[in-house]
Amino acid sequence: MKPVVISVTGAAGNIGYALLPRILNGDVFGADTPVILKLVEIEPAMKALEGVKMELFDCAQGLLHDVVCTSDLEEGFGDADAIFLVGARPRGPGMVRADLLRANGPIFTGQGAAIAKAASKDVKVVVVGNPANTNCLIAQEAAGKHGMGPENFTAMTRLDHNRASAQLAIKAGVTPRQVSNMVIWGNHSPTMVPDTEHATIGCVPAATVIGDEAWLRGDFCKTVSTRGKAIIEARGQSSAKSAAHAAIEHVSDWVRGTPTGSWTSMAIRSDGSYGAPEGIVTSFPVVCSGDGSYSVVTGLECSDWVKEKQAATWAELQSEREAVQDLL
Amino acid sequence: MKPVVISVTGAAGNIGYALLPRILNGDVFGADTPVILKLVEIEPAMKALEGVKMELFDCAQGLLHDVVCTSDLEEGFGDADAIFLVGARPRGPGMVRADLLRANGPIFTGQGAAIAKAASKDVKVVVVGNPANTNCLIAQEAAGKHGMGPENFTAMTRLDHNRASAQLAIKAGVTPRQVSNMVIWGNHSPTMVPDTEHATIGCVPAATVIGDEAWLRGDFCKTVSTRGKAIIEARGQSSAKSAAHAAIEHVSDWVRGTPTGSWTSMAIRSDGSYGAPEGIVTSFPVVCSGDGSYSVVTGLECSDWVKEKQAATWAELQSEREAVQDLL
Repeated sequence: MKPVVISVTGAAGNIGYALLPRILNGDVFGADTPVILKLVEIEPAMKALEGVKMELFDCAQGLLHDVVCTSDLEEGFGDADAIFLVGARPRGPGMVRADLLRANGPIFTGQGAAIAKAASKDVKVVVVGNPANTNCLIAQEAAGKHGMGPENFTAMTRLDHNRASAQLAIKAGVTPRQVSNMVIWGNHSPTMVPDTEHATIGCVPAATVIGDEAWLRGDFCKTVSTRGKAIIEARGQSSAKSAAHAAIEHVSDWVRGTPTGSWTSMAIRSDGSYGAPEGIVTSFPVVCSGDGSYSVVTGLECSDWVKEKQAATWAELQSEREAVQDLL
Repeated sequence: MKPVVISVTGAAGNIGYALLPRILNGDVFGADTPVILKLVEIEPAMKALEGVKMELFDCAQGLLHDVVCTSDLEEGFGDADAIFLVGARPRGPGMVRADLLRANGPIFTGQGAAIAKAASKDVKVVVVGNPANTNCLIAQEAAGKHGMGPENFTAMTRLDHNRASAQLAIKAGVTPRQVSNMVIWGNHSPTMVPDTEHATIGCVPAATVIGDEAWLRGDFCKTVSTRGKAIIEARGQSSAKSAAHAAIEHVSDWVRGTPTGSWTSMAIRSDGSYGAPEGIVTSFPVVCSGDGSYSVVTGLECSDWVKEKQAATWAELQSEREAVQDLL
């Protein structure tokens, strides 16, 4: 079988380290598809990346066809079928969100342009590095200048989706696989909207199973949106394996399709669905057809409570867009 | 399907962190078998372990049935079908190998006894924590006092086996899956014997493909036996994902069987095969039948060069046994 090319930026970091064995296990394109890995890092991390490559060979995984380590973007994205944009400038002391957006902007203009020039025309890109939604927007705009459409670029809210599903499962005393059709709306930030109004637990509406609307609108939302911080406090390190797992699921669903009758949450270019402003990258309930296309789930009725929260997260995304307007 | 119980010690450490998502991916017992995880840590690591548990739920993996976090050994090993003994005292400043053996001895006497008392009668135990062979021997002896046989306890040399296979693949310019039937003899220590005399690359004898006996007996052996150190130098951290991968393969092969026509390397209680002294845990070429039993591959002809190196690694294992004799 012809190998697929999968590129990962920030490949020497903790999320990259958790992601690579899953990719080589066939968890994205399937257990029979060989993989050429293109690992992208900044110059100071190239030595550590070499160590990562050594371990990949030591895993002797059957699907490993070749590994390229590079700091050159066009080499790193060359012919890529899927790209995980994990690397990003982390928030330094005293930086506010606007500073972070400005610090990451040039990284994602460069990556967007290189992807449009070098990757496969139907490449599937997921932005994991934060602020993911607006980083994705910046990459879309840069790629657009080289003729690639925004549909190739998505940002990850699957971790929030999974965290929300897990909280429902814990509260209901069931396993996470019994929870379906959560929706995350908006930004991967504290303004995200974890919407349980369409979720089911064992095919019964979540609200009926849980029977506690105050919890669903209160502690549940707070736990989901502050989960990353809680994990740092417990582990002393940020989420890596759960982030990597969510990224794998995001791209795997995109490639192979969401299960019949259910959907996932993905941040994509807004087409105005549900009243979301156009020109931002926002999370929607999304169905993937299995042929590489995806679409927003239509016709969901949202309560006024959800609509109000949607308006707030969309407003945040618009203000993020304004903060990086000169880069677009 | 009835869930299996899998216990992991040192579950909050780096190898544990890499191991758990693979277990929940169904990579040990198969993609349809739910898993109850029992995570064992020492008291000071319980908070970090709680963070690990949070991320496991956030992965929302379908096979996750339950997670127990404990520092109580009998609770941690209760009804276990498979146990990964990853936790061990690391080598501190100024400690020599004998000190390390003495520091780890009491850990593995306690664990061996608890396993015999609490685990499933056909539990499959792999010792990953170093010095793995003699830690395994200590656990076997402790379990034996409570009526459990030594065949339940093995130590991991699969990482060395994989590292050796990878080096052959790299030298031959092929992918690792084309390499079969490496053998690691002896101790998981610098005295290990990476024996290529029965290995094949694409069904051709490795010696024929490589055509460089001096390399096979020189740089190849050195690279394999010092690989762990080389990875620490490159990454700044010790091997975690390749160790976790090897541990998964070790137990998965034990549970589901080695592929027809090939074998793996596992450290097991010596029955005297190939002249290895009895009463030590040493790596052999091993075939797993798929019903939970395993046996040493018989009838391999070893060169005098290999025999000489076998004698040295077995002598080291005998001296390790003597160093912990009072614990046996």
